[in-house]
Amino acid sequence: MPFGPDCAVPNLTTSTDAPVLAFESRLLERAAEIEAWFRRQWQVTPPPFYASVDLRNAGFKLAPVDTNLFPAGFNNLNPAFEPLCVQAIQSAFERIMPSACDVLLVPESHTRNRFYLESVALLQELIRKAGYRVELGSPRSDLHGPETMKLDSGRELVLQPLLRDDDRVSIERFTPCVVLLNNDLSGGRPAILENLSQPVIPPLALGWSNRSKTQHFTHYRDVAREFGALLEIDPWWVDPLFRNCGQINFKTGDGEECLASNVDLLLQDIRAKYGEYGVKEEPFVIVKADAGTYGMGVLTVRNGEDVRKLNRSARKKMTATKEGREITGVIIQEGVYTFERWVEEPRFSESLSGSAESLLGLKGATAEPVVYMIDHFVVGGFYRVHAERGIQDNLNAPGASFRPLAFAEAGNCPDLRCGPHEHPNRFYAYGVVARLALLAAAREVAQALLHESLQSGRVARAVA
Amino acid sequence: MPFGPDCAVPNLTTSTDAPVLAFESRLLERAAEIEAWFRRQWQVTPPPFYASVDLRNAGFKLAPVDTNLFPAGFNNLNPAFEPLCVQAIQSAFERIMPSACDVLLVPESHTRNRFYLESVALLQELIRKAGYRVELGSPRSDLHGPETMKLDSGRELVLQPLLRDDDRVSIERFTPCVVLLNNDLSGGRPAILENLSQPVIPPLALGWSNRSKTQHFTHYRDVAREFGALLEIDPWWVDPLFRNCGQINFKTGDGEECLASNVDLLLQDIRAKYGEYGVKEEPFVIVKADAGTYGMGVLTVRNGEDVRKLNRSARKKMTATKEGREITGVIIQEGVYTFERWVEEPRFSESLSGSAESLLGLKGATAEPVVYMIDHFVVGGFYRVHAERGIQDNLNAPGASFRPLAFAEAGNCPDLRCGPHEHPNRFYAYGVVARLALLAAAREVAQALLHESLQSGRVARAVA
Repeated sequence: MPFGPDCAVPNLTTSTDAPVLAFESRLLERAAEIEAWFRRQWQVTPPPFYASVDLRNAGFKLAPVDTNLFPAGFNNLNPAFEPLCVQAIQSAFERIMPSACDVLLVPESHTRNRFYLESVALLQELIRKAGYRVELGSPRSDLHGPETMKLDSGRELVLQPLLRDDDRVSIERFTPCVVLLNNDLSGGRPAILENLSQPVIPPLALGWSNRSKTQHFTHYRDVAREFGALLEIDPWWVDPLFRNCGQINFKTGDGEECLASNVDLLLQDIRAKYGEYGVKEEPFVIVKADAGTYGMGVLTVRNGEDVRKLNRSARKKMTATKEGREITGVIIQEGVYTFERWVEEPRFSESLSGSAESLLGLKGATAEPVVYMIDHFVVGGFYRVHAERGIQDNLNAPGASFRPLAFAEAGNCPDLRCGPHEHPNRFYAYGVVARLALLAAAREVAQALLHESLQSGRVARAVA
Repeated sequence: MPFGPDCAVPNLTTSTDAPVLAFESRLLERAAEIEAWFRRQWQVTPPPFYASVDLRNAGFKLAPVDTNLFPAGFNNLNPAFEPLCVQAIQSAFERIMPSACDVLLVPESHTRNRFYLESVALLQELIRKAGYRVELGSPRSDLHGPETMKLDSGRELVLQPLLRDDDRVSIERFTPCVVLLNNDLSGGRPAILENLSQPVIPPLALGWSNRSKTQHFTHYRDVAREFGALLEIDPWWVDPLFRNCGQINFKTGDGEECLASNVDLLLQDIRAKYGEYGVKEEPFVIVKADAGTYGMGVLTVRNGEDVRKLNRSARKKMTATKEGREITGVIIQEGVYTFERWVEEPRFSESLSGSAESLLGLKGATAEPVVYMIDHFVVGGFYRVHAERGIQDNLNAPGASFRPLAFAEAGNCPDLRCGPHEHPNRFYAYGVVARLALLAAAREVAQALLHESLQSGRVARAVA
């Protein structure tokens, strides 16, 4: 292995005296069954083209807290796993569209974030290495010709305006056979991408203009139940409890009473679970915009009163999310402690994360794993690390300026000769739980496609 | 990248004044077309489960010289690419048999070679990591109960006798749904594996008891022609010329005159090609057992006279191959110079190849790349390195005790920002040519299956 032991895995420091559950051991013992189960699931419901899943590891619980169908941090992955991404991209396209050759990649429209641009450039490079021609097209209305951007990595992006001809989208001198979205459509579904004869993946219906976290976690709850039955474990070990409030206006205060009482009900349920497992920590919940993204519109709450006494700045923060989208519904999700932290200063080879300097001062920092998947394959991930944030905090909040630390291992190689907490197996556990969230997303996609085809009275051409 | 530049790639030292051909540049320019072409090919003819291909790189020519459908050197691969192998194994089984869960791996019967045993143990581990139960069964008639072997790596192998019940094979307490051969059947087709209801991959017909190198290279010649037409290159750049002699007996000398004259005819053809490209080297040919394996029964020959004047020990060497199988037919193959050698002492991280000591003394050594593939994916490879062997010699001869140096890169990541000879691209070129040989093998498999099904009057159940 190119990386020595302990070099890039935070320690699990459960500050609680609750027993660390036997979850990871169970995963290892039953790995063959788990993988067979996943294989059957992907036959029934094909996986999305790609996804990233944010996890939180409390030791007694390992759960997803967010699933992104337009992953935006490919630049944070370990470059050693590029071949794995390339192979998975080949598998994904072969499954979805065996004849595909030319791919149009549609990135986010707010293209000034240099980290995001690096991610897009890398994704384009990976698709090219997989053996496809791939160009970038943007639905931005202010784009009238090619726009070239030079990136810090030395890579270059050329963004071109989309052209529409009958039922086909193209850019100048390039008509793709498939459109790959890396744009979460928070700003709405671009008309130029509607009703195409080319497949759009993921389908437009999966952008945040249609999607809701409540839908996703409702599917996830089912998945966790089925998985719990398979492994004979309490699904709660992998499933964050949640409730939702559909009608809320933080500006006027409408619906806040509903929110406060739901917060209290959810805290009661969490407290009961903590009691069952002897967890001594204080329960908390996270209130998030139901259609939100990018860590915007997120509150950490410890009781219903917190909601009733929101100050002006918190209220403002909760009124709108990305691209000014108004928040009208929220999901109230069980807060999952993150008990992973670097006990020692992490040591890395420089190649892993740019400069070694940026890694200083991380002793004691909390870490939130983010797992990347292409098709049904786990292809790596990274830790969001933030030295100044607490174990209850959201590490993806605006201004949180987390530092990404690439996973040292790929997450698809459980090692039965190691203990359940040794790192190949820690990464395997991440990969299993992340794939549960991927399966929930797959069901979401299937449902959205069914819904669209019923609405339009035709079979949607877009595929998963 | 985990490995620095120049650390594990030999230099190309063409001692000839022939122009190094523009082959690698062409591969890079046309990578998208090449990959699209391969994708179409795999749709028509599914790839074998796995294969390894020996290549020789003369600078003016990069060609396969042997294709092994039962690869036996997984232990020589870079451990950093384990995740790539695991992912490819998952893809292979999903394609061949989506419902497969339990795999019976049938290794070679001559199980004393400790390097081979390490390869089997690693293969078993990779399949297990891919999420399958996998046990080892042997057709050895002297095996009456489980035999446990402890390996130097700390791994353990448990070999169990095969049991037959009606049309199913099993071992004690384990009935597989698929049988994976890692046994080249030089000793013949084991009756216990005939006419099974479980699929056998690769099919029995692809063992050396049925296969011939002539068949393989006849398919390969077609593949090279098609590929040459695609890239607008002379297929000879990737195709070693060959002839064969079907009836030969080195013990009695019968058929040697046919061999000698074919050697001279082939040398004429090679000389013509060398003339066309201004290659100043002396042409040579390799005479190999047509059904041979393991580098046994191989001669390097520079003219017909060499064959007429064979001494007693060379004659003896050519009478039999592995497991005492008599040689009755030979292939006479264009010898391809290997102009890859370490100009400097190679530098490696210790993790790559066991101990750093074993790498001393390799300055000036010649290197022969061996590429590993699972399904249609290139998953790595290694160099056979031998300091004392010349650039015309076969580096896989008995007693050649080559030292394996794992590839530093996976071979599926061409980098358009590097020159054609920089190493991501060198490995990509290996991967392309190796996949041409894989495609020839795929056509061999398809033909063998067709032949068997015609013979038996039923559709062969075995799949690619």
